[in-house]
Amino acid sequence: MNTVELIKKKRDGKVFSIDEINFLINHYTSGHIPDYQFSALLMAILLKGMNTFETAALTNSMLNSGKVINLSSIKGYKADKHSTGGVGDKTSLIIAPIVASAGVYVPMISGRGLGHTGGTLDKLESIPGFRTDLSLTEAIGVLNKCGTVLIGQTKEIAPADKLIYSLRDVTATVESIPLITASIMSKKLSEGINGLVLDIKTGSGAFMKDQKDSINLANSLIKTATSFDKEVIAFITDMNQPLGNYIGNWLEVYESVRVLQGKVKNDLYTLSIKLAGAMIYLGKKAASIQEGEHIAQYQIENGEAFKKFLDIVELQDGDVNFIIKPEKYPKSKFTKKVRSSKNGYIKEVNTYLIGMASLELGAGRRTKEDIIDHKAGIIFYKKIGDHINNGEIICELHSDSRTKINIAEQIIIESIKLSRKKVVPPKLIKKVFQ
Amino acid sequence: MNTVELIKKKRDGKVFSIDEINFLINHYTSGHIPDYQFSALLMAILLKGMNTFETAALTNSMLNSGKVINLSSIKGYKADKHSTGGVGDKTSLIIAPIVASAGVYVPMISGRGLGHTGGTLDKLESIPGFRTDLSLTEAIGVLNKCGTVLIGQTKEIAPADKLIYSLRDVTATVESIPLITASIMSKKLSEGINGLVLDIKTGSGAFMKDQKDSINLANSLIKTATSFDKEVIAFITDMNQPLGNYIGNWLEVYESVRVLQGKVKNDLYTLSIKLAGAMIYLGKKAASIQEGEHIAQYQIENGEAFKKFLDIVELQDGDVNFIIKPEKYPKSKFTKKVRSSKNGYIKEVNTYLIGMASLELGAGRRTKEDIIDHKAGIIFYKKIGDHINNGEIICELHSDSRTKINIAEQIIIESIKLSRKKVVPPKLIKKVFQ
Repeated sequence: MNTVELIKKKRDGKVFSIDEINFLINHYTSGHIPDYQFSALLMAILLKGMNTFETAALTNSMLNSGKVINLSSIKGYKADKHSTGGVGDKTSLIIAPIVASAGVYVPMISGRGLGHTGGTLDKLESIPGFRTDLSLTEAIGVLNKCGTVLIGQTKEIAPADKLIYSLRDVTATVESIPLITASIMSKKLSEGINGLVLDIKTGSGAFMKDQKDSINLANSLIKTATSFDKEVIAFITDMNQPLGNYIGNWLEVYESVRVLQGKVKNDLYTLSIKLAGAMIYLGKKAASIQEGEHIAQYQIENGEAFKKFLDIVELQDGDVNFIIKPEKYPKSKFTKKVRSSKNGYIKEVNTYLIGMASLELGAGRRTKEDIIDHKAGIIFYKKIGDHINNGEIICELHSDSRTKINIAEQIIIESIKLSRKKVVPPKLIKKVFQ
Repeated sequence: MNTVELIKKKRDGKVFSIDEINFLINHYTSGHIPDYQFSALLMAILLKGMNTFETAALTNSMLNSGKVINLSSIKGYKADKHSTGGVGDKTSLIIAPIVASAGVYVPMISGRGLGHTGGTLDKLESIPGFRTDLSLTEAIGVLNKCGTVLIGQTKEIAPADKLIYSLRDVTATVESIPLITASIMSKKLSEGINGLVLDIKTGSGAFMKDQKDSINLANSLIKTATSFDKEVIAFITDMNQPLGNYIGNWLEVYESVRVLQGKVKNDLYTLSIKLAGAMIYLGKKAASIQEGEHIAQYQIENGEAFKKFLDIVELQDGDVNFIIKPEKYPKSKFTKKVRSSKNGYIKEVNTYLIGMASLELGAGRRTKEDIIDHKAGIIFYKKIGDHINNGEIICELHSDSRTKINIAEQIIIESIKLSRKKVVPPKLIKKVFQ
């Protein structure tokens, strides 16, 4: 097979065979196809698309570039959740302990934050001592003991995806539904799970701003998961404002703990219960998603979910003291309250900008090499539809740099639009694919 | 400016500004944009296109990556011809001496052959001693003395084009009208010419097989040339069969000499007269293309064109003896006559395959590093529309390898289709843009 001819084939809108896809992925992963050819191919795929069969073949080829974790020693249903990412989305930290405490295994492989969105690994690592770089043997040990484990992508898992993702990131080829699908599914399938719940975000803070694109991605992910005999439930959920009220790594752990303790019942709680309910249902511990949700709520009320979270932290070498007494955690040198200069109803929040403001404060990364300040971030007091008075606090900024706080404040003021008229808040859960 | 954002812009079908195009070309040429980003950009340009202004800006940026040859010391009209390339196309060798002998300067920069098509430089270099790597000063000296000079692209001329062309070649991004236009025009404009005649081939041996694409390319080239204040005449000409009867480097020089001596009046002669006529007309030595053609014919009849060719060979250090007595030229070790196994009219010649057969015999290059056998090639005895009998000779193959001759024979048999019914030969000159 000839690489140039294959690029030409996709460029001309033709369909690849399984063998052709395997050739491309294997030869790129082994270094026999140079980056400059593969990036031209990626652009052709982005612009010409791939059908369902090609997407499944691509997923399979990327999956087979590495190991599939063997979880056969663990007897029980294994489920995971994947979110396409957003601002303030810390549901993984809440769902994993809820679902594990309800008897469904959750082997969860997460990523790091880049750009305007945070990453579960970074949030977990804000807990002093917490290790996300467990070996596979250690990870299976933790999973066996407490029913869930939260780790990062190891070298053995889908190495093709790591390589391809890095290249997509610098060649404007990220926003392709087949490429996104194969990237997500190759990693998730390597976890050795039985079922998967997908949280596909839509709105100003989401990767896909248009709901149509989110629906297309959901369909693509579902078809691919199904072709690998995995059970799947997908949700399209709102990302037109930050999820919950806290943004920033430790701040998000703190909010997750409050939700797990039953002290907060905001949009973060609602979405976490919904996603956990779907996982409990997939794991046959409930007869419906709704019953799953009731179980999830109950696991919070009876304290089991929070207990499970403490177990995870302990088993992954985190310091539980900070979870029990979060007031002990180091504080940012500076805080600033951002106040409204007008009266009105919050109509619009440019959530991408909010994410960028949080990055500015030190909570995120512009490049992979940037170091995160775990303390930094934003506490939001208002949601779309809320009324706010002139002088009232919109949010509170935390950072070790006064300059950065001032920049972030400007960004936040830019990102919020008020209206004189009442505003209907956006629907949190927009669509369910079951 | 950010490279990823610019790739995204073209990917999303938006229009570049002049500054953006300059940024991309300058940063790629200086090595600040890596190949893997530029190839994704090239694919986006191929699939999303560029408008007339972008194409002119791209041409200008590529032109400015190098020097424009200063021909102000040469008083007189300077014209060149560019062909998009085909099999057996040796018109440059015939036109340059005709036009120069008619008083129009022809500073001609040509390329090498790659794949199924030959290159003027390789043909010229089949003449023992002939140098195509003259310095600019030497080239201007030759041009001054004999009115024409035939050289290769120097390092100073449009270096951006050299870099970009190498990348396009291996990333399936060759077939883009704006990219082809900028590549051709950046080189031609650097020659310091006043006018240009374009020979855009269409058919099975052409780079553009579909006449519509050839017309689009002609329009794009004309618009770009005009925006740089160059006079231009474009022809769409047939490449559904080899041009002339000889294919292979020395064989083509031999046929050119025969045409220049007035001994052959085939399709090669007709096209050469037409193109030379247009150049003579552009150079104000004739009142119309037709009058230019008459002058071109006359320059052959009166021996001036052939005399001019001898001057060129001598001034560029070639051995004139082989031109005067071509029978002295070394012969291939083996020759084979390919015979028809059927009766009929020649209906179709897959000219791409004929080119590949010639390459197989040793006359061409698969990669830039391949060494050419100047003696090797094919002499074709038949044209589309000709009747051929069972056992009659179609062509004669020349090579130093018997194995290669056998392979080439198979390719040629594959490439020719006969018909029982009479066949109308294809029209040689399909369209003129003046």
